[in-house]
Amino acid sequence: MNSAQWARYQTFLSAVPAAGLKLDISRMNFSDAWLESMEPSMQQALAAMDLLEQGAIANPDEKRMVGHYWLRTPALSPTPEIRAEIETCLARIAEFTAAIHAGGKFTDVLSIGIGGSALGPMFVSDALGHPAADKLRMHFFDNTDPDGIERTLATLDGRLAQTLVLVISKSGGTPETYNGMKLAEAAYVRAGVDFPSRAVAITMAGSKLDDYSQNWLDKFPMFDWVGGRTSELSAVGLLVAALQGIDIAGIVAGASACDAQTRSKNTRENPAALLALMWHHATAGKGLKDMVVLPYKDRLLLFSRYLQQLVMESIGKRNDLQGNRVDQGISVYGNKGSTDQHAYVQQLRDGINNFFVTFIRVLEDGGEPLELEPGVRAGDYLDGFLLGTRAALHANDRESITITIPSVNAVTVGGLIALFERAVGLYASLVNINAYHQPGVEAGKKAAAAVLDLQKSIVAALTASPATVEQIAALAGSQDPESVYLILEHLAANGRARQSADGFSRA
Amino acid sequence: MNSAQWARYQTFLSAVPAAGLKLDISRMNFSDAWLESMEPSMQQALAAMDLLEQGAIANPDEKRMVGHYWLRTPALSPTPEIRAEIETCLARIAEFTAAIHAGGKFTDVLSIGIGGSALGPMFVSDALGHPAADKLRMHFFDNTDPDGIERTLATLDGRLAQTLVLVISKSGGTPETYNGMKLAEAAYVRAGVDFPSRAVAITMAGSKLDDYSQNWLDKFPMFDWVGGRTSELSAVGLLVAALQGIDIAGIVAGASACDAQTRSKNTRENPAALLALMWHHATAGKGLKDMVVLPYKDRLLLFSRYLQQLVMESIGKRNDLQGNRVDQGISVYGNKGSTDQHAYVQQLRDGINNFFVTFIRVLEDGGEPLELEPGVRAGDYLDGFLLGTRAALHANDRESITITIPSVNAVTVGGLIALFERAVGLYASLVNINAYHQPGVEAGKKAAAAVLDLQKSIVAALTASPATVEQIAALAGSQDPESVYLILEHLAANGRARQSADGFSRA
Repeated sequence: MNSAQWARYQTFLSAVPAAGLKLDISRMNFSDAWLESMEPSMQQALAAMDLLEQGAIANPDEKRMVGHYWLRTPALSPTPEIRAEIETCLARIAEFTAAIHAGGKFTDVLSIGIGGSALGPMFVSDALGHPAADKLRMHFFDNTDPDGIERTLATLDGRLAQTLVLVISKSGGTPETYNGMKLAEAAYVRAGVDFPSRAVAITMAGSKLDDYSQNWLDKFPMFDWVGGRTSELSAVGLLVAALQGIDIAGIVAGASACDAQTRSKNTRENPAALLALMWHHATAGKGLKDMVVLPYKDRLLLFSRYLQQLVMESIGKRNDLQGNRVDQGISVYGNKGSTDQHAYVQQLRDGINNFFVTFIRVLEDGGEPLELEPGVRAGDYLDGFLLGTRAALHANDRESITITIPSVNAVTVGGLIALFERAVGLYASLVNINAYHQPGVEAGKKAAAAVLDLQKSIVAALTASPATVEQIAALAGSQDPESVYLILEHLAANGRARQSADGFSRA
Repeated sequence: MNSAQWARYQTFLSAVPAAGLKLDISRMNFSDAWLESMEPSMQQALAAMDLLEQGAIANPDEKRMVGHYWLRTPALSPTPEIRAEIETCLARIAEFTAAIHAGGKFTDVLSIGIGGSALGPMFVSDALGHPAADKLRMHFFDNTDPDGIERTLATLDGRLAQTLVLVISKSGGTPETYNGMKLAEAAYVRAGVDFPSRAVAITMAGSKLDDYSQNWLDKFPMFDWVGGRTSELSAVGLLVAALQGIDIAGIVAGASACDAQTRSKNTRENPAALLALMWHHATAGKGLKDMVVLPYKDRLLLFSRYLQQLVMESIGKRNDLQGNRVDQGISVYGNKGSTDQHAYVQQLRDGINNFFVTFIRVLEDGGEPLELEPGVRAGDYLDGFLLGTRAALHANDRESITITIPSVNAVTVGGLIALFERAVGLYASLVNINAYHQPGVEAGKKAAAAVLDLQKSIVAALTASPATVEQIAALAGSQDPESVYLILEHLAANGRARQSADGFSRA
């Protein structure tokens, strides 16, 4: 008799009724004593979140406020100016979108961005779109791969005149986004289609992109106090969704409702607090287990990619707030159920116990209610696989969390985003790190810039006669022959250097 | 001066020249002594692989031969009958595909399968397809989500008469595939389009699907000695790719060339052996670190999803070959670079050191060679980000492997698949497990079947007057009120039960 499990389910169930969310943590093996022991830390985390929402410098390294919660409840903004900025932006999105839809000039949108300027927009587009309902067809550049860019442009062949381009970059200095914009612009020029009158910038006032887009069709703001990975409810996420025809007011309402509930100081009634506590329980507050995200719904396929950034970029930090080395993080992966059952649930069930699962359960089946046998439909299998896998994992001592929503709609999607945003912030407080900076990204950027600088020196050092890698390294002033070789290999593969038995020469 | 790193790079570089693959393990921190110490185990693993290729019962639990290597070099088949089966199948794929392309009746293909019958086909379709070159447009059902199925059918609206359907299932008993087939069939019936004359089965002789498809357009075999996750070079992967217009002979040739090289008993010249050894080194032969797969090329986005199944379903095992509990596995995740740099390289660089990266580097840029500044193109950034990230990780003591290919083409894709297939087999030998069964998948299926059975009892127990969950559980003969509640919740959300303050009643 499993009545103990049924009692535990009911005891620990929490919810955001206004956003349709329920959080079930009954299959996590924490004890009441452990939960009690964490209460003082959670109260501190909730108090820190209060200060953050009131406009504290919650990102101390970058000396910034952290204001993504104001985006969905502008009345909570710390100053009237900020409130006006948010409200004006929302009104301008509605106005611009209505004009584009009414104008009938555009059939497609090409959105150019990366990281927080792509993962949220792509997730929401896929979660809430439908080919028969979308007002415009969506396309994304999210990389600096010229082949990938060409392939996306090929799907737009002959339609560039009807394609609206959004360029999304806070600084305008993100190379992937800049390069995508330049390659798009070149394609418009080749097709004889005017680019500026079809281009819209989403950027911070005074940025390089702000400058570049002076004569473009329009421009929307990014705010200093919104970080990339929490920008889905700013113009970054909302403009592109509104253009597709998605109910952005619903997204904002769902997030606002979730925020309201998850401000509760009553931990047991606060799903974001409980979620953060479960992460701490599962990973010992050190990331010792991976977070496997398994939504049983095709529309939520991209949610785990979105959460990879939100969680890993926020939590994956070398130092704590006092500068002690802590090497924090929680690794996130997953695609969708039941599909992933046929990929790796073998390992989850039977293999190394290095993870906890977050199931996302969607109650309404949608689609065609065809009976496959009397009383059994395709959606019964989908839900049955989720419940069966949850039970099979539990039977083998593997932990799981289950988040339930009635359907994938604007309100629940807004709620899910807000739930995880706040859980990340609370978890960061529990483990005493800054969730809102990303110093490690800079190291990679600097290393890449050094590669591009070295490439220039190498190209300048090449002559008509072949030289060895070591000779070219010396000429290029480099102490790193391996990097010189790897760059030469790339240049040679693209016809920009010549490789022979004697070494490398000018192409 | 980094000449030591340059020497290490050259010392350990291995290659499959005929498939264009190079494997660089120089940024893994193993010692010569460790490599030497593993040599006897690796020789045993290579000997076991010889026996497998000669037709040994290499999957002892299921008492099956493991023959995916014969698919690309039929002359190595253990019997003339198997060789003839393979060669006949390849010839029939060519013939059937030529007829479909010549016939001009079809514009689209809907491929229905899950796990090994979807991940390989979807990866290859995306890696090698192009909207301007594809002979037919591809669509996939890979789940039992009725909403997701409806959305895919909506993109085919009005074109079902020109859509060829492939149904891929070894047994025909996989519910997701069966349900997808029935929903597709129902859509054809609703549209007044004949289904059997547009449907092709890929299944094992004598299966439930073999039976169901008697009057279909055609049928291709699945072989008892090919497992789902290694079936990409059987009809499962090759028919759908050929229909898209992909050079399947190139895929077979690349895999065959990689097989030939990776049969070498000289470990230092065998990239599959070195790859398996690096997994052992990184994870201590126990899965202690995650495998992060980062191809810097949009076309390879789905490779990590393909590898999740190949690696995790093969390696994630409870028992070793002697039945001792070992809880093995290696977790795999990743999407693509440089996109993922803006998602979670912050954590990889600075956070918890619980992973090793497998970079996949593609030398030819493709696309438009636009100069963004003098001498610098978008592809230089892509390669620069890879090299910069590899260096930044190394500078912080994070290990990485780099696989380099000249371009994403049929031969290199075939080579990549074969490389990882053999590395998985060799690694399984090193850690003494059966790579070719999946007993844990059965547990989940049984648990799901129990949920569906319970649902039937619950529906039968519902009456016109509301009853509590406990009452309904008793009537349904269940000891598990939590499961009864969860099933009722799903039924009520879909109008198949009624929920009130007093409990649940018939809808």
